[in-house]
Amino acid sequence: MSDALRIIPLGGLGEVGKNMTVYEIGDDRILVDAGLAFPRDEHLGVDLVLPDFSYLADRPLLAIVLTHGHEDHVGALPYVLREIEVGEVIATRLTLAMITSKLDEHKLAAATTLREVRPEDGAVEVGPFRMEFVRMAHSIPDAMAILFETSAGRVLHTGDWKLDHTPVDGLKTDVGKLAEIGNRGVDLMLADSTNAERPGMTGSERLVGEAFRHIIPARRGRILVASFASNIHRMQQAAEVAIANGRKVALVGRSMRKNMSIARSLGYVGLPDDALVSPKEAMSLPPDRVLVLCTGSQGEPMSALTRIAYGDHPNVTVARGDTVIISAKPVPGNELRVHDSINRLTRAGAEVLHEEVALVHVSGHACSEEMRALLSLVRPKALMPIHGEYRMLAAHARLGREAGIPAAGIVIAENGSVVELTPRGVEIVDRIEAGVTFVDGLGVGDVQDVALRDRRRLSEDGVLIVVTTVALSDGGEIAPPELIARGFAEDDALLDDLRDEADRVALELSADGITEVKLLQEHMHDAIGRLVYDRTRRRPMILPVVIEV
Amino acid sequence: MSDALRIIPLGGLGEVGKNMTVYEIGDDRILVDAGLAFPRDEHLGVDLVLPDFSYLADRPLLAIVLTHGHEDHVGALPYVLREIEVGEVIATRLTLAMITSKLDEHKLAAATTLREVRPEDGAVEVGPFRMEFVRMAHSIPDAMAILFETSAGRVLHTGDWKLDHTPVDGLKTDVGKLAEIGNRGVDLMLADSTNAERPGMTGSERLVGEAFRHIIPARRGRILVASFASNIHRMQQAAEVAIANGRKVALVGRSMRKNMSIARSLGYVGLPDDALVSPKEAMSLPPDRVLVLCTGSQGEPMSALTRIAYGDHPNVTVARGDTVIISAKPVPGNELRVHDSINRLTRAGAEVLHEEVALVHVSGHACSEEMRALLSLVRPKALMPIHGEYRMLAAHARLGREAGIPAAGIVIAENGSVVELTPRGVEIVDRIEAGVTFVDGLGVGDVQDVALRDRRRLSEDGVLIVVTTVALSDGGEIAPPELIARGFAEDDALLDDLRDEADRVALELSADGITEVKLLQEHMHDAIGRLVYDRTRRRPMILPVVIEV
Repeated sequence: MSDALRIIPLGGLGEVGKNMTVYEIGDDRILVDAGLAFPRDEHLGVDLVLPDFSYLADRPLLAIVLTHGHEDHVGALPYVLREIEVGEVIATRLTLAMITSKLDEHKLAAATTLREVRPEDGAVEVGPFRMEFVRMAHSIPDAMAILFETSAGRVLHTGDWKLDHTPVDGLKTDVGKLAEIGNRGVDLMLADSTNAERPGMTGSERLVGEAFRHIIPARRGRILVASFASNIHRMQQAAEVAIANGRKVALVGRSMRKNMSIARSLGYVGLPDDALVSPKEAMSLPPDRVLVLCTGSQGEPMSALTRIAYGDHPNVTVARGDTVIISAKPVPGNELRVHDSINRLTRAGAEVLHEEVALVHVSGHACSEEMRALLSLVRPKALMPIHGEYRMLAAHARLGREAGIPAAGIVIAENGSVVELTPRGVEIVDRIEAGVTFVDGLGVGDVQDVALRDRRRLSEDGVLIVVTTVALSDGGEIAPPELIARGFAEDDALLDDLRDEADRVALELSADGITEVKLLQEHMHDAIGRLVYDRTRRRPMILPVVIEV
Repeated sequence: MSDALRIIPLGGLGEVGKNMTVYEIGDDRILVDAGLAFPRDEHLGVDLVLPDFSYLADRPLLAIVLTHGHEDHVGALPYVLREIEVGEVIATRLTLAMITSKLDEHKLAAATTLREVRPEDGAVEVGPFRMEFVRMAHSIPDAMAILFETSAGRVLHTGDWKLDHTPVDGLKTDVGKLAEIGNRGVDLMLADSTNAERPGMTGSERLVGEAFRHIIPARRGRILVASFASNIHRMQQAAEVAIANGRKVALVGRSMRKNMSIARSLGYVGLPDDALVSPKEAMSLPPDRVLVLCTGSQGEPMSALTRIAYGDHPNVTVARGDTVIISAKPVPGNELRVHDSINRLTRAGAEVLHEEVALVHVSGHACSEEMRALLSLVRPKALMPIHGEYRMLAAHARLGREAGIPAAGIVIAENGSVVELTPRGVEIVDRIEAGVTFVDGLGVGDVQDVALRDRRRLSEDGVLIVVTTVALSDGGEIAPPELIARGFAEDDALLDDLRDEADRVALELSADGITEVKLLQEHMHDAIGRLVYDRTRRRPMILPVVIEV
């Protein structure tokens, strides 16, 4: 009798970000990816969002396998390693290099063993899991898919991918191996859904290089290219065109310097030493001799490009005649920040080229025609769309149905779904707790939903504090209340009236002999709240403070 | 000697929204458009954003001319009429009908005189302003440009426009008249910059009709189309295709019902009475017999489509097999809300078609090739880009330069710039105060920047209130402080430590004989703030309350 394989997504379903999936046979567990998400506006004041991985707490993990080095696939790794015993972390060379520097920062270098794999090599066995790896093209080098050979069946987990036939490093998605795996017979495929709604094919990374070859030689001023620092080939392409046109290259922004340094030392990027200058040197060169590669393509508040846009960067400025290329697409929710950067850079005199107006970005994810191609190559018996909001998972499911997968073989799961694969097929058999954990300042998991609800309320209408004292010794005499308003319309007449109302309530309660603190607070809260709402149609948070003296 | 013409944009420059421009000769003033903006996330809790029009306070306006009926061109009208004496409001028929219902709601129907104009008729004279009107195509019927003939020169103000050669009502942008005006000689053109960065031509509104003709006949379930309620021809096209396919039409959402009722009663839309059903009736018909036209294309929280998406609408639900067409593009900042609606509707079983995946929307604004065409037709001596963020104004200015306008004739102004046109040319001669006024609940202008700053701070880190009493009669004894935290990480150990620290500070101050309230508050604030920051790297708003008893 074969053991069932249980697959439990802890993150990445119904959302874009914090990808994390448990694979479980009997008591043995492997984790695929350990990603984080960046907070949305509704997560007021939160720094990072992690999957809630408390499900993993009861026993060690045999291994964590990382498909590639993006934050939404590796960013939660330090937080997992802090709490869970992990046998080894398995990944390709670049991915390992990126997490090594991350683990060093968190003082977790000794927390586990790192095992480097190359997709071209043979299978790896960890407990009951036999894994092979398949090279996949993506917007960071060295990405891979994972094929699990288990007693319950064969499962392909794509990670993030696209079908780039002309990647910059020549390392294409290995369609030959995918076809061979398809011939072996795949029982279940978990595949990236990000662009499932988009028709056609995603452009090759090389298209952006072509755009650079059109733009860069024609410009006379400084050129700044902002992109995700992990998009090493994007940076390489810009640098190569610039160097060929007599420009020196400056790296600006911490993660840009770090990633380029890793990529250069491992040989992923061939950038000659004498082509690089410091940001300071760059600013002393003639403008047509400079290319700046910088962070900040998402308008992040403290990033290099944002500081440059605000005239607030210690070294780099832009002036009339300069060109800024924002080689990225705003992640949904970041649009206004990116637009703000564009406006400020334009005001400073630069011409800003961005994805809305020029072909200076391509996605890292397969569009629907590529997904169809993958479904044709692999011909899985069942499909479980992963990596995406519900609309993307649903669109991916439609593609699967069109490719001939029967309805019973389409699994639209959620974070926390327990998906079981047995020789009889695949189904959702259970669900576990799988929410989010917030990292807020130095605290991990301290901020709860109620705090966020409070922050939201405070953010909309402010706070009104009513302070009064009740003199128990004096037969319960209640002092005239004081009012403190913050984030609330500053209308003195209204505040006066509220003070009068608070006085009136205090006197009335006093006359009624009510001295119980809870009751006083309730009366005060309701009376003030009513008056505020009548006068302003607003509901600030009202905090009555009653002190017994 | 001719009088100078002063043009003062009070809104709409460096932003998208709240368009409002003063035209002034000597003491005589006309206002073109009186628009509002919808608050951005940074305007925590604000309902509406108006231009600060205090510049207009000192004397009556001869007239307000409205180019078309969109909220960003007419929405501030009631607020202006409440404070400024206005001789007359001049607009086309549909625009007047829309503002009439708005003025009725504000009980301002008697505040001014309404004058209907037709672009095809002759000139209108108001004081020293002789105006002609030019029909322009846009995403609402009955839009027009204004040609001012003044002693200082001839000025064309386009309003919002596009070069739709096949508008649904057949009323095209009047290129013949624009050419004729160009032949007369235009000294200055103020023109819409919204899509100046976008290459090519904006598609005709009729393209969306073609999409409807492909989509609607093929569907078997209910079909919902969400769009701006003012996009009357969009609704008409969807309704016509639906009716031809045996569906009845239900109007859902207050502004949808209102605008369609105005448009039908004035003859802008020919929708037979028997084609309309109530939302309730619609839900009792077979799904393939129903089209629902609804509001909520921007994911607005209380709108029809959002309530439907949340399963919270009193009449309308969606189910498996239904189709939702979101026939609009999210205004920047609304993306996440729209995505949330799409996800929820998909989860409810509907297929959602939106502008990212199908051609179900076209813009109402000219793209760069259309702007070049306009510049060729009108051949203005000078160009002042209006309606747009700085990047859009700058892109429009580049188009003007490429069209042969000399650098001295390009005026990139800001809200508050005083632009003077004389027979010698055009230049910015001064600037006036031109900020924003917030409408927050029932208050207009009560919320100031400091309140917004407070709300932002509260929204990020919450609030911590420290309450203590000082007994003046008892020689300044300070009671052990109480702590109240809201929107702040709920870590009991931390709160205990903060309470201890507050106690310590109280005792220390008491021992030092410090009883002055301000001083006590300062000490408490600093000590607690320091400890909170050390422990959490967060800076909640700390409000020390000291009460003398």
